[in-house]
Amino acid sequence: SVAASPAAPSLRPRRGVVAVRAEAGGGINPAIRKEEDKVVDTVVTGELAKPLTAYCRCWRSGTFPLCDGGHVKHNKATGDNVGPLLVKK
Amino acid sequence: SVAASPAAPSLRPRRGVVAVRAEAGGGINPAIRKEEDKVVDTVVTGELAKPLTAYCRCWRSGTFPLCDGGHVKHNKATGDNVGPLLVKK
Ligand code: FES
Ligand code: FES
Repeated sequence: SVAASPAAPSLRPRRGVVAVRAEAGGGINPAIRKEEDKVVDTVVTGELAKPLTAYCRCWRSGTFPLCDGGHVKHNKATGDNVGPLLVKK
Repeated sequence: SVAASPAAPSLRPRRGVVAVRAEAGGGINPAIRKEEDKVVDTVVTGELAKPLTAYCRCWRSGTFPLCDGGHVKHNKATGDNVGPLLVKK
């Protein structure tokens, strides 16, 4: 269980500043496989199931390393312009 | 550029929380092809030159969409843990 410290500061976001827990200044991956030192994935082209597969580059996909379309929400929320890498058989 | 507001709160990091100055409010791509609404690239597996090709997912590569190892500097600077997608012929 986690007891709140009496001295813990408020986590309420402030204008122009985003409080990010456990992600050092400027990190782009908030949550995916944070137990790994470096998240690397491998696609073996001979094993691809579909003619076209989209791989995530926004670190917001619920099906990472695949793209689940989560970049759309991320781009809308932040004004960013990131998108997937498409791999074509 | 970001002009400091007179009312801007301190950006001093707090324990367990990192204050991140909003880059387009949480964007992860600072500079790559910002003239495009969404940066999508396609790999045609039959056209791959090498047995193994690394594709960037950190948005810091000078040879984007290829990985140039720039994720190492990004991870060191920020404590992040991102890495490329490897495509194997
Ligand atoms: S969900 Fe991350 S690029 Fe699509
Ligand atoms: S340079 Fe971006 S993942 Fe390697």
